[in-house]
Amino acid sequence: MSSYQVLKERWHQVSRFNEISAIMHWDQAVMMPPGGASSRAEQIALLSGQVHKLRTQPDTGSLIKASQDEDLSKWDRRNLDLIEKSWRKQTLLPAWLVEKEAAAAQAAETAWGRARDMDDFSVVENELQASFDVVKQRAELLSDALGEHPYDILMDDFEPGLKQDFVTPIFDEFSAGFPELLNAVQDSQANEPKIISPEGPFPINLQAKLGRDLAAILGFDFGGGRLDVSRHPFSGGTPSDIRMTTRYDEADFTSSLMGTLHETGHSLYEAGLPADYLTQPVGFASGLVAHESQSLLIEMQACRSDAFLAFLADKVRYVFQGSGPAWDTENLIRLYRRVSPGTIRVNADEVTYPAHVMLRYDLERALFSGDLPIRELPGAFSDALYERLGVRPKSHFDGVLQDIHWYSGGFGYFATYTLGAMTAAQFFSAAKEQLDDLEGDLLRGEFSNLLSWLRENIHRKGSLVGTDKMLISTTGRSLDPACFRRHLIRRYLGE
Amino acid sequence: MSSYQVLKERWHQVSRFNEISAIMHWDQAVMMPPGGASSRAEQIALLSGQVHKLRTQPDTGSLIKASQDEDLSKWDRRNLDLIEKSWRKQTLLPAWLVEKEAAAAQAAETAWGRARDMDDFSVVENELQASFDVVKQRAELLSDALGEHPYDILMDDFEPGLKQDFVTPIFDEFSAGFPELLNAVQDSQANEPKIISPEGPFPINLQAKLGRDLAAILGFDFGGGRLDVSRHPFSGGTPSDIRMTTRYDEADFTSSLMGTLHETGHSLYEAGLPADYLTQPVGFASGLVAHESQSLLIEMQACRSDAFLAFLADKVRYVFQGSGPAWDTENLIRLYRRVSPGTIRVNADEVTYPAHVMLRYDLERALFSGDLPIRELPGAFSDALYERLGVRPKSHFDGVLQDIHWYSGGFGYFATYTLGAMTAAQFFSAAKEQLDDLEGDLLRGEFSNLLSWLRENIHRKGSLVGTDKMLISTTGRSLDPACFRRHLIRRYLGE
Repeated sequence: MSSYQVLKERWHQVSRFNEISAIMHWDQAVMMPPGGASSRAEQIALLSGQVHKLRTQPDTGSLIKASQDEDLSKWDRRNLDLIEKSWRKQTLLPAWLVEKEAAAAQAAETAWGRARDMDDFSVVENELQASFDVVKQRAELLSDALGEHPYDILMDDFEPGLKQDFVTPIFDEFSAGFPELLNAVQDSQANEPKIISPEGPFPINLQAKLGRDLAAILGFDFGGGRLDVSRHPFSGGTPSDIRMTTRYDEADFTSSLMGTLHETGHSLYEAGLPADYLTQPVGFASGLVAHESQSLLIEMQACRSDAFLAFLADKVRYVFQGSGPAWDTENLIRLYRRVSPGTIRVNADEVTYPAHVMLRYDLERALFSGDLPIRELPGAFSDALYERLGVRPKSHFDGVLQDIHWYSGGFGYFATYTLGAMTAAQFFSAAKEQLDDLEGDLLRGEFSNLLSWLRENIHRKGSLVGTDKMLISTTGRSLDPACFRRHLIRRYLGE
Repeated sequence: MSSYQVLKERWHQVSRFNEISAIMHWDQAVMMPPGGASSRAEQIALLSGQVHKLRTQPDTGSLIKASQDEDLSKWDRRNLDLIEKSWRKQTLLPAWLVEKEAAAAQAAETAWGRARDMDDFSVVENELQASFDVVKQRAELLSDALGEHPYDILMDDFEPGLKQDFVTPIFDEFSAGFPELLNAVQDSQANEPKIISPEGPFPINLQAKLGRDLAAILGFDFGGGRLDVSRHPFSGGTPSDIRMTTRYDEADFTSSLMGTLHETGHSLYEAGLPADYLTQPVGFASGLVAHESQSLLIEMQACRSDAFLAFLADKVRYVFQGSGPAWDTENLIRLYRRVSPGTIRVNADEVTYPAHVMLRYDLERALFSGDLPIRELPGAFSDALYERLGVRPKSHFDGVLQDIHWYSGGFGYFATYTLGAMTAAQFFSAAKEQLDDLEGDLLRGEFSNLLSWLRENIHRKGSLVGTDKMLISTTGRSLDPACFRRHLIRRYLGE
């Protein structure tokens, strides 16, 4: 075996262990009885330890060096670069720091559950401080070694190469135009007919069947995946065995339904990754910006379009035997387009969502620069919400405690949501131009052309070129936030 | 850490990896879409490889030696012995042989699926031969090193210490009296009123709820386990996260229901294992004879007793709203007691089941002695069925292809079923003597006294003393097959 083949085999094993973790995580969220909890934590830690061990074997550096001289294909060359990058980050970290960070995050996440139950940030403050301190320590250690800003080091874990120099101007520009946009949308919606919510109950089994049918219509193959229920919806599993989840509300089918379509967007990306490299870094999704671009392209761009909502309205009327004004297509469209500033990010509409993301991005950077101490986070959070959206959380539960990210150690993640939304708008705009009749397709619930286009331009590329280069080759330019803004103006102001 | 603590920590990790395998196996049987199959095989092989590596680390021998001098509790002393035994067997086997055996078994199991589809043994003959050859090679290698008979080496994997010298006389004696017993039972049943099968359909959701309710009545804690559906029912998972399965037939609730009670017997054993040693060999179930004794004690001894069947008849009448003669308690008892020789082991009644086991035991030993070539197995199987039960399989599907065991490399397993049935009869007879009013308890569906008795005398002992010593300390003597015979005569001949 050549040096590169040895590396490839080793990273293949890493992927298999990660796949096992993915299924065990899914099982934990969807199937596991409470009695399994303590063993499960240990089982998953054991798998992570195994992965860290495989990735940092002492001969990795020399294997990488020897591989550089091999005659490799474009895919393998890139794969080697990605292996080297992941190895560099991993080997710079001492095992004790990795373990300390995992343990601190685990403690903070557990305390977060208590803090939410008691609606009191002070219950988790010490644990969050401890966890934040280790994350910062890791970021600074890597920053010193790699010459990148500590916060950029963190964002790079989620979307390779993402930097504040790129993100901040984009967010600032959007923020600058946001109050005017929001006012205009609210003014416009104030003149629209009153929205009527369809009245339930909507039996869970019908909702589940409808969700499955729609996922299949979008192109999801249930021979290679499942749709189940969990408290927090996610897409997990592996590319050939995808595990999507949703949660149902008997009183309201609309949120679970759109949630399922969102997760289907993630899942179609995973299912479309390059079959020959599924267990190699070059075969993975390009990053979380790219991933969110795929879920939001499906959910926000395609499935909340007038055309698809008309198709969907027919479906839901039929499935739930709905009749009357609440079930009119126009009313259902308005229902799925309601813009209303609120305190909770995951309930936010497409227009106000970026504000939730940007305030978190600012708060995180203030934490890392030292301008904002952890103990002042609840107040700063509340002030930021008020400043950007004019709402104040009534409690810590609705405010600083609402998201798991910080408490599970996930600093540097939030920006990918809005960058994903912007990337989605740009990809979708290109798809509309390049496909014959995308609007007609959506009106007929016909996704095969769009899916082929996504596979060819995005999914099958894996991590071969990176998210920005996929944007350039597909849309002719780097991320252009004006595209997202135009989308919002067209959809919500009809201009 | 002392040498023993190092060993204990290592075997703890082995258990955690095995627990992961157990959940992944359950997922494969119950949840996994077909797309996951090929990755799953590799994931599970990787976990097995990891376990083999941990168990055979080069310093294990010296750690064991050093541990011998440590001051250990009774439990830890026995644990050390069991670690040593497992290590000895493992280290004698070269890794290539372990891998070859796993691959050959995998190939034979896959070919078995095709052979069943085509109802043709010749489709799997070569793969079975290859797999058998490697199993035999392993058995002979260990036989040479350990001085045990190769077939005893195989049985020891399933029930520690089980030997032909012990099994053969027991089986021979039972076989000698079997024709007379079967004739008498059939004569007696010929004079009973005709059995009427309750008419369905019996909705799956009602069957599932009833199965869960009964499992809970027996003492199964759903906070530490689940009951789901799989093609082949089993009990898997881990002691704190038990995964039982069953399969439902809309036209007939009786078989799934008793199947669930059988698996509950297995699960109660796992759930009752000693909490302080769950991940150590001394904390595992004592062997498959012991395990089957627990499932059969619950299913055959307790739940098919007149007393419990009267309780059960009330339940099923209520749940399925049954009325009329088919639902009479007496009829339901006869339904659950029907003795009828057939070709399929898993459908066999309590009286004819041992004949199925004993013919397989004989055939296996003939294969290993070389008296029976693999290619003659279908004919020998058919002849043996005819000789013991007077029935001939109509096809390979109903004959030699009916069980997975041989095709998945599981030679030496079958005897544990009937030894389990005999052990169950003996334990139950002691429980009846030692408990105040077991029959009254069963009539009321009250299992807490029986469960406490099983926990104290069997479950909580794990592998501390071995199955035979548990029999001796609980019933006053080693396995006494007369006890099982008396049970059959009492139940089926009323003597």
